[in-house]
Amino acid sequence: MIEAIKQSYNKQGFMKTLGAELVSIKEGEVIITCHLNDTLTQQHGFFHAGVLTSIADVACGYAALSAMPKGSDVLTVEFKTNFIKAAKTDKIIAKGHVIKSGKTLTFCEGVVTNVEQNITYATMQATMICLRSNQQHK
Amino acid sequence: MIEAIKQSYNKQGFMKTLGAELVSIKEGEVIITCHLNDTLTQQHGFFHAGVLTSIADVACGYAALSAMPKGSDVLTVEFKTNFIKAAKTDKIIAKGHVIKSGKTLTFCEGVVTNVEQNITYATMQATMICLRSNQQHK
Amino acid sequence: MIEAIKQSYNKQGFMKTLGAELVSIKEGEVIITCHLNDTLTQQHGFFHAGVLTSIADVACGYAALSAMPKGSDVLTVEFKTNFIKAAKTDKIIAKGHVIKSGKTLTFCEGVVTNVEQNITYATMQATMICLRSNQQHK
Amino acid sequence: MIEAIKQSYNKQGFMKTLGAELVSIKEGEVIITCHLNDTLTQQHGFFHAGVLTSIADVACGYAALSAMPKGSDVLTVEFKTNFIKAAKTDKIIAKGHVIKSGKTLTFCEGVVTNVEQNITYATMQATMICLRSNQQHK
Repeated sequence: MIEAIKQSYNKQGFMKTLGAELVSIKEGEVIITCHLNDTLTQQHGFFHAGVLTSIADVACGYAALSAMPKGSDVLTVEFKTNFIKAAKTDKIIAKGHVIKSGKTLTFCEGVVTNVEQNITYATMQATMICLRSNQQHK
Repeated sequence: MIEAIKQSYNKQGFMKTLGAELVSIKEGEVIITCHLNDTLTQQHGFFHAGVLTSIADVACGYAALSAMPKGSDVLTVEFKTNFIKAAKTDKIIAKGHVIKSGKTLTFCEGVVTNVEQNITYATMQATMICLRSNQQHK
Repeated sequence: MIEAIKQSYNKQGFMKTLGAELVSIKEGEVIITCHLNDTLTQQHGFFHAGVLTSIADVACGYAALSAMPKGSDVLTVEFKTNFIKAAKTDKIIAKGHVIKSGKTLTFCEGVVTNVEQNITYATMQATMICLRSNQQHK
Repeated sequence: MIEAIKQSYNKQGFMKTLGAELVSIKEGEVIITCHLNDTLTQQHGFFHAGVLTSIADVACGYAALSAMPKGSDVLTVEFKTNFIKAAKTDKIIAKGHVIKSGKTLTFCEGVVTNVEQNITYATMQATMICLRSNQQHK
């Protein structure tokens, strides 16, 4: 499943645009990092909320996929993000992990921190849905 | 306030990265559009959930700011996005509008649709906070 | 399906406890009302956030069920509630309606207002799941 | 502050209605329990989602208040609840704790489990607002 996740990740043009890097895949936990540059900022020059959310979403999605049967695909049903603190840093880490893996739905939590993981910028709750290989996209 | 919103928007490097366009500002409602290209895709070639969320967040944020006192700034406290349907289209429209504008907090709703506005891809509920000019970022 | 919804509603001991009344069922929209009394208050004597949320959840759930195939049952996957204004009133109305009805998941929105429906106390986004008659509860 | 929280809790008519018990108050963490009976059920006889949410909300709210300056009051801005598993048990425990305490807003997380705390029924993310004693309710 690790190979399938890497292949899927590499097809995401948007992750390339963010310069995001898939640094770790374990069953039920995925980590993605991202460096700040001028293309990722909000109006004060910090990481945009949309960047934090995007990499947290992908970390949660692949964490969910890592716990699904082989051949599955994953789509985000919904997520909620709390912005705890402005992300005034030059590198962020998003960790997504599975809270409960079901046949159809998987609940995940995500957290976006600094490199030292002692400052939390955002927390996410996400619901993911498992698509079998023969299902159409909703 | 319209001029202040345009200036703030133009400082957002991430909006340039998305190729997003601020097409309308009215008091309590802001509209942003975005064209699909290879840099904005998820693994199936459609608009990434993170792109939908990012422009909906910005539309909600500036809708909130449009109803705040002059000299205010806005930050996103939290949002929730529901992904109703995969965004298989070449252009999306995000409309953010204010539900309740308070002295400190503003509640907004966002919706992301196709150009004809007859297919909804995502809906957002967002809470925004008003920062006075003399306040530090949290 | 209207009869099935009424029967299911009447089995909810908690709705009796709230003194809630199921006043309208249409395909995709359900309305529930509730009168204030001393058993439903928060610390300032207004309707408790939990009461607003509970009747909005049930209105959304049965709105979803009203659009599902006969014999289905419904469970709440998740919801988010925004508390727009303290519910200083003696009767509230919760209206739930379907945004998108899918085979497995249904997206709903709920709103809790006063009787005149010109003051909004809370808004809800909810995801509901359809259980076929032969499925076990998760 | 512990005394102030107990007094505020005891004014909540709705907590009496649920038969909920405030069992622990520490700075930044509050625990509430609730026993199942016929007045708290959904259509299958389990704890109603509204009950889980209500006690999690109150646990989060008082966890937030426990970290605020003396004389403060607390209101719920918004929350999101994920329903991980049907609460088929005769007693539930809701634990709310503070993620980030700010001057105006406090972010909390809540979790509802069985007594042994090895089965999670629901998780909550909540935003609370601090009201100074001289402020009116929104």
